[in-house]
Amino acid sequence: MSVPVRMADEAPFQFLHNEVIHYIYKSAENGETENGKNITKLENMGFRVGQGLIERLTKDTARFKDELDIMKFICKDFWTCVFKKQIDNLRTNHQGIYVLQDNKFRLLSQLSAGKQYLEHAPKYLAFTCGLVRGALSNLGVKSIVTAEVSVMPACKTHITCPSSDQRHSHKD
Amino acid sequence: MSVPVRMADEAPFQFLHNEVIHYIYKSAENGETENGKNITKLENMGFRVGQGLIERLTKDTARFKDELDIMKFICKDFWTCVFKKQIDNLRTNHQGIYVLQDNKFRLLSQLSAGKQYLEHAPKYLAFTCGLVRGALSNLGVKSIVTAEVSVMPACKTHITCPSSDQRHSHKD
Repeated sequence: MSVPVRMADEAPFQFLHNEVIHYIYKSAENGETENGKNITKLENMGFRVGQGLIERLTKDTARFKDELDIMKFICKDFWTCVFKKQIDNLRTNHQGIYVLQDNKFRLLSQLSAGKQYLEHAPKYLAFTCGLVRGALSNLGVKSIVTAEVSVMPACKTHITCPSSDQRHSHKD
Repeated sequence: MSVPVRMADEAPFQFLHNEVIHYIYKSAENGETENGKNITKLENMGFRVGQGLIERLTKDTARFKDELDIMKFICKDFWTCVFKKQIDNLRTNHQGIYVLQDNKFRLLSQLSAGKQYLEHAPKYLAFTCGLVRGALSNLGVKSIVTAEVSVMPACKTHITCPSSDQRHSHKD
């Protein structure tokens, strides 16, 4: 009996993530919790997981040179740890804005590709936004993180680091 | 920058699992949900994750010979997929009772080893009981699954399959 274990490596995390969304939205339906808070709840859970993970991952790494160095770590090591693949494309304006593109975002791969499913995308992205924000926060980088899906299952994560604007203006 | 990625392979799942426990217990404290239901909720989440995972894992496998063959798959492939290690010891009375021992159960590794933490063990085991029950259920095996910790971080999972008793008596 051979099992494609590598292929299924991210599966436990992915299934649990789906189950968490299901649970939170169902609790809200049952009136146990407030519906509007669902995205915030998922984002908060992601934040705490991101904090824990980055702490474990950077335990033995050298200090980062700068913010871009940190982003590269997020794109490569951090993303691989969670999603078993790297970010496909990293763009920055070198003034604190970063766009991370994942052409095959794992947490969307169970949603069908039709446009009618795009409306469900936000709940599949909230946890990951928190995840990135939590990781960055633990590395001393304050950020605002949002994500968008244009064509499934590609996902763009936008990171804005207000503090780095200030740093740039200090340099001027 | 080198990262011990293999070591951290199970980390995202583990951190998310901890966060789910934290979330469910905190909701109960805030009076949003009923406290007594927490273990059941975790068990149910595990059940659904187990169902999904086993479906993915057995997609391309041959049919199982018998119940013991299924248990071996749970101990080896299924456990490795979720916990990145195999069950260390499988015992059975060949009448529908199985005991799976994991000497270093990953979902307990973040709890300290003191005896005073043993009281918290049940909430760290409920999800996994559901996980195993869900996996078995999808393979047509009805079961009752419980787990216990004697010495941290070792964990014994007890599986009772009532149907197989019947099968044995049919053979008699």
